This record gives sequence, structure tokens and C-alpha cells, in this order.
Amino acid sequence: MSQAAGQEPGAGLAAARTAYEELRAQDLRLDLTRGKPSPEQLDLSDALLTILQPGDVRAADGTDCRNYGGLQGLTELRTVFAELFQVPVDQLFACGNASLSVMHDVLAHAMLSVLPGAKRRWADEDEIRFLCPVPGYDRHFSLCDRFGITMVPVPLTGHGPDMDVVEELVAADPRIKGMWCVPKYSNPTGETYSDETVRRLAAMPTAAPDFRLFWDNAYAVHHLTDEPDAVLPVLAACAEAGEPDRAFVFGSTSKISTAGSGVAFLGSSPTNMAWYSRLTAAQTIGPDKVNQLRHARFFPDAAAVGAHMERHRALLEPRFAAVYEALEEELGGLGIANWTSPRGGYFVSLEVPEGCASEVVRLAKDAGIALTPAGAAFPGGRDPRDSQIRLAPSFPSVGEVRAAMRGVAVCVKLAAAEQAAASPAV
Amino acid sequence: MSQAAGQEPGAGLAAARTAYEELRAQDLRLDLTRGKPSPEQLDLSDALLTILQPGDVRAADGTDCRNYGGLQGLTELRTVFAELFQVPVDQLFACGNASLSVMHDVLAHAMLSVLPGAKRRWADEDEIRFLCPVPGYDRHFSLCDRFGITMVPVPLTGHGPDMDVVEELVAADPRIKGMWCVPKYSNPTGETYSDETVRRLAAMPTAAPDFRLFWDNAYAVHHLTDEPDAVLPVLAACAEAGEPDRAFVFGSTSKISTAGSGVAFLGSSPTNMAWYSRLTAAQTIGPDKVNQLRHARFFPDAAAVGAHMERHRALLEPRFAAVYEALEEELGGLGIANWTSPRGGYFVSLEVPEGCASEVVRLAKDAGIALTPAGAAFPGGRDPRDSQIRLAPSFPSVGEVRAAMRGVAVCVKLAAAEQAAASPAV
Repeated sequence: MSQAAGQEPGAGLAAARTAYEELRAQDLRLDLTRGKPSPEQLDLSDALLTILQPGDVRAADGTDCRNYGGLQGLTELRTVFAELFQVPVDQLFACGNASLSVMHDVLAHAMLSVLPGAKRRWADEDEIRFLCPVPGYDRHFSLCDRFGITMVPVPLTGHGPDMDVVEELVAADPRIKGMWCVPKYSNPTGETYSDETVRRLAAMPTAAPDFRLFWDNAYAVHHLTDEPDAVLPVLAACAEAGEPDRAFVFGSTSKISTAGSGVAFLGSSPTNMAWYSRLTAAQTIGPDKVNQLRHARFFPDAAAVGAHMERHRALLEPRFAAVYEALEEELGGLGIANWTSPRGGYFVSLEVPEGCASEVVRLAKDAGIALTPAGAAFPGGRDPRDSQIRLAPSFPSVGEVRAAMRGVAVCVKLAAAEQAAASPAV
Repeated sequence: MSQAAGQEPGAGLAAARTAYEELRAQDLRLDLTRGKPSPEQLDLSDALLTILQPGDVRAADGTDCRNYGGLQGLTELRTVFAELFQVPVDQLFACGNASLSVMHDVLAHAMLSVLPGAKRRWADEDEIRFLCPVPGYDRHFSLCDRFGITMVPVPLTGHGPDMDVVEELVAADPRIKGMWCVPKYSNPTGETYSDETVRRLAAMPTAAPDFRLFWDNAYAVHHLTDEPDAVLPVLAACAEAGEPDRAFVFGSTSKISTAGSGVAFLGSSPTNMAWYSRLTAAQTIGPDKVNQLRHARFFPDAAAVGAHMERHRALLEPRFAAVYEALEEELGGLGIANWTSPRGGYFVSLEVPEGCASEVVRLAKDAGIALTPAGAAFPGGRDPRDSQIRLAPSFPSVGEVRAAMRGVAVCVKLAAAEQAAASPAV
């Protein structure tokens, strides 16, 4: 990446360096690292704070939500989200405040108690492997790290994982016990799994009898267009394929109501849910039903969630537009970068010349623009091409997004120019 | 228990049977099974429901509590409960809604990741054993069942576990990795650990280098007298004894604010908390900080918690008094039953003649009075003497408690009389 000593930089490199020094002189303090809702988005749900008044604490079935009990969560809330997560209501649990915790717990339970269809506890296997479509969600990979699960990257195609690769791997290797899937507006590529992808995932023969899809439907209702993407209901697809126990479905209201104080959900087959229910019965006397009742009052039906998501969209769209505008203005037609224009979700995925992503992130950091570390969307935090950068425009203001993205474009141009200048000398 | 055929029952037995038939005729529907707060107790915290208004969602350090983040929980809330749970504030995490879940997680983490001081993961040990003072809390025993931990009962003395027994066991058996302790107003005996007990637990040599006290301080502030019991701070005692990593301290506001929507806490040594923090970082992006902020506003300091607990006491005392009155009136001086008069907590422990507890519970159930199953306070649900019954008077009204306890007394008299009548014939 460094320039060969004594070489006269080209005009492009000189201009890129000047632009970068001007950027640094602005002394920015901007952050595009995490897919966090903005304060304005959180304000949309402020009615939750006072929606329950003293004396109004009972669920539809008369349960005093303030007291212990009710492992499965409130029926009225599960009914609304059963529709949105495409899970039969009897097979859906409303849990705590974070779907990540539910994923952790399902993994921990599988490590320590024999999953339906498994020969033994995963903790007693020599090695557990998970397929990881890449680029993907870093916290899925952290969970694998935490449980000592070997991650096997598989490529994405724009409509889900490359199923030829997936089918070959799972058919051959009984150590592959699971696969992470973000089926809609995937983090970070924004792609949605095609019907064929879902059907093949549901039906593919697996060497492991206890193989599971970890179906993280994190962006189920997080549309950025008038014509939302649809994903085939995975539990139904698995049942039709004769693999009813193949998928665990995860979701939450974290990016629907509030990020830290929402409600998470788990859905699966009756057999899997009976297994989970037995294990979680030892873990808790029940979830926070008061918070669930708040959500049930705020979201009386799926249409109320849909209307609410339109208000999120109105806040998110200008931020995404600011990303596209800045990138197009600064990098359009230069042939040194590509980026996604997702139809939903929280991220734009930026592709820079191979070998440049780390340098772009470093340059941006030195100019006061925090980006997700290059490689974060890959197992082990290492992008083999060092070319992918995840942009998260939701949290800053539109003006901040614009300023940050112009700055990022300056960094991309400098990194590309330095690489181009350096490569002939190598 | 059944009467020998053809034997003429004594006058006592006949009277007991008549009383029992009169009880059954009342067609009661009463429940003394669980240590649940009454609706009136939950009402005490109804201000929590609306204590945060839109625009008032920031913690003292400026954190927007609605968003992601903050693994350790809100500092202002931890500061209040650090004092009450006798844990340095930097070593205390504010977690989710249930201390049971925190206990589960610490156990799951110890099963799957090497505890500080341990040679290997507990999942890789041939056998893990926990000492269980009996009678004890059934959900502790359910956690052992869930993780395949062998339970070793140890007797209680009235001021904590029999330390001669405990010291001998832990010194000899490296499979003993842990011990359940409810140090104050223990469930169900109500006893509080003496200073000497705490010091010996902290200092005793253990064959397992990774032995841990699971210190469930569930009733830390749940006094029923003007002179609260005090327990020696266990973390300090362990540190003084040169065993700083010996104890995990658990607590919650479940019986302070509301049972399903309170805040749980975990405290331990810096080394243990670093271990926990690393593992829980993969499990969650942070607890429900909005609910923690509610609690911080409602309980600005330890004195506010103390004042609040006096209001609980005012509701609980008449219920406990109703238990004592009914038992004294019906069973006093008969020599067939003993019961505790706890200085705090949620339970009265009733001792009936050996071999009679199951029959008393059965008779009560047939008369419409639900009691905790006999043996529930023992590992495996089996009381070897079949003599202990846990009474939980908090939830029903005073009148219901009185009616239920008179009924229980009738059942005790009948069971004892039948046993006495039957035993000569055996």
C-alpha cells in the first residue's frame, strides 16, 4: 500500500492526497459503525413508555403481567408476530429483550442437551461446524467463536447463499450442524433469499441428522420500498420437504420498537419447541410480560406494525439516499467502487479494490470517521479479498451521513490511487 | 397410612375424619404453593409503569436507554444495589428480569468455558456435584437436573449449613464444584447464615480448585422484623480468606418491585466478572436499560428500597400472622407439628410426623387447598423423612391464608391420627 520511495506520485494520487488532507482538516467526529436506530426512530415508540397505567396490567386472558409465570409469553403479542414471522402462533415464544440471547440459548442448549434427531450433545462432538454465508453478521460469528464452532464461509449470490456449494458441503460433512441465514435484507448485502433458495435449504440432504438452519429474520418488516420483498415461510417449506425440525426462526422488535427494550421471538416445529420449552423452564420463571403487554397494546395487529415501519422508512430513506448521492457524486463512473442499494434492512455494502478495505477504514478513522472494521462481516474478522466495507447510515443525521460518506469516498480514492501508484513498483 | 381392616378407629381419628369431611364440604379453592407477591404488593410499584415520560430516557451519563449497548447495566442502579447486595459497584452487573436466568447462564458458561482456576470445562468432567443444603429452593435443584449435576444434600442447622459436614465433603471430593446458598431468610427454613458459617464457607479448603459458592441472596432486604438480620459480605470474606474468586452473588428486584419485570444482578470478583463479561458479550448487546432506568428513578438510593420493603412487610406480616394463629389454635401443644417463624423471606416451613407430609398434601389437595408438593424442597423431589411442607402465604388474602391454614391443620391432624391408628397394626 505504501508508495515506493522517491517515486513521483501521479496527478490522481496528488489530488487524492490533497483531498484527504482537506478532509482531515475538517476534524470530523462521525460514526457509521453499527446498525443502531437513530433517536428519531426511537421516538416513534415513545408511547410505549406510558401506554400502561396503574390498574391496566392484565393480559387478555386475565394474567397479571406483573407477576411470575407464563413461559411462552403473551398470546396477544405472539399472535401479531406469528403472522409477521410466518410461524404458527402455538409454535412461537415471546422471550426477553434480545434475539441474540435466544440464539445463544438455543446454541447452549444444543451443546448441553441432545437436540431432537441428534445422537449426542454437541459438546460431546469432536467438532461442530456452521455454514456462514459471507459477508454476514459479525455477532453470529462471535457466537460461533464463543462455542468453539468452526465457521465455513459460503458465498452469497444476490438471492441467498450459493446453493450448489451449500448442498455439496452439508451432504458430505456430518460435522456441519448448522447454518446462519438472514433471509430478508441480509446484513450487510441487503439481499433476500429467493423461493428456490428457501426450498433447497429446506429439502437438501444433510449428513448430520441434527442439522439446523438458524433463521435470523432480523429485517422481516424493515422495508425501504413500496413493494416489500417476500420470503417463503421456512417452517412450512421444511415441513413440506419432510424436514419439519430443520429450522429455528429468530426475530425481535429491536428495530421495530426500541433497540434495548424490545421483545425477542423464537419459533420452530412443535418437536423443537417442546425441547426448548423443557430447557428454558429451568432457566426462567417467565419473560418480562409487562413489556410484552406494552408491545401488545402498541401493536394490536400486524397492520399496526406495518404502519409503524413506514414511519421508520421515512426516517431511513433520506439517510440511505445520502449514502448513494455522496458515493455517486464522488465515485460514480470511476470503476474503483461498487455499492448495494438495498430494498430494506440497515446496511449498504461497499466494495472497494481488492486489498484496499482495511486502508480505507484506517484512513477514515484518522479523519474522524468511524467505520465497521474491514473484515468484520467475515468469520475471524478477515475478509480474504480485503475489499468489503459495511456502511450503517441509520444512526447519524442526514447531514452527518452525507459528510461521512463524502469523506469515505475521499478515502476510497486515496487508497485506490496509492495502490495503483504502488503496484507497478512492486 | 391406610387403616387396618376392621379396626375400630380411636376417638381422635373419628374426630379428625369428621373435621376433614367438614373441610371438604366447604369446597375451598385456595393456593399456598408458590412464593409469589400478592397483587397488593405489586401495586406498591405501580409508579414504575409511568415513571419515565417521553423525553426522559437518558441515564445519568447521557446514555439513551432505549438504544443498544451497555453490557454492565446502568451505573446509577448498580450503585444502589451494590450497597444492598454487599458487592463493590464495579463488580456488579445489572442484567435481565430474572436472577434464575443469570444462575443458569453462569452454570452454562462454566459448563462450556473454563472457569478461572478450573482445569477444564465442566462439560468435560466425568461428573459435577453440587452441595445442596436441605430443605432448599426447588428451582436450584431443577438447574442441577438440567445440567446433569449430581446433588449432594447437606443438613441445615438453623444458622446455615452444617459446616462440619460441608468442610469434610468439599475437602475430600474434587467432583464437588459448587454449593447453593440462600444466606438470608433461606427458602424455605427462613434461617440466616451466621458470621461463622460465612467465614468457614469462604475459607474452607476444597479439593476442586474451581469450587464456587452460588450465593443466591434472594431475600437480602425482605425483613419481617424491626431488626433485620445481617449477613457477612461474602465477597469480602472470600477475599480475606485468600479465596477471592469463590463466590458468585445473585439477587434481583423480583420481590422488591415486580416479580416478572424486575432487574436481576450478578456480582463476583474482578476475575470472575471479566470471565462472565467476555462470555455474555457474545450473548447480548445489553440488558433492558429502559427498565433499569425506571428502577433507578423509583429507587434513587438504598434508603428508598428500605422504605419500600417496609410497605411490603406491612402486607406480608398479617399473612404470616394468620399462618401462626391458625397453626397454634389447631395444632399448638399437640406434639404433631412444628413450624418456623421466620424473621424475613417468603415461607413458613412446617414439620409434620415422619411419613405424613405427602399424605397431608394429598388430603389438602382433595379439600381444595393447593400446597407445594411434599419433597419439593429436596433434590429429586424426595424428602427422605417425608415430613417437611413449605407454606407460601404471600399471595392469598389474609382471610384465605387463615382458611387455608385451618384446613391444613385439619389435614395434619387426620394424617397423624391415621398413622397412629395404623402403626400398631403394622
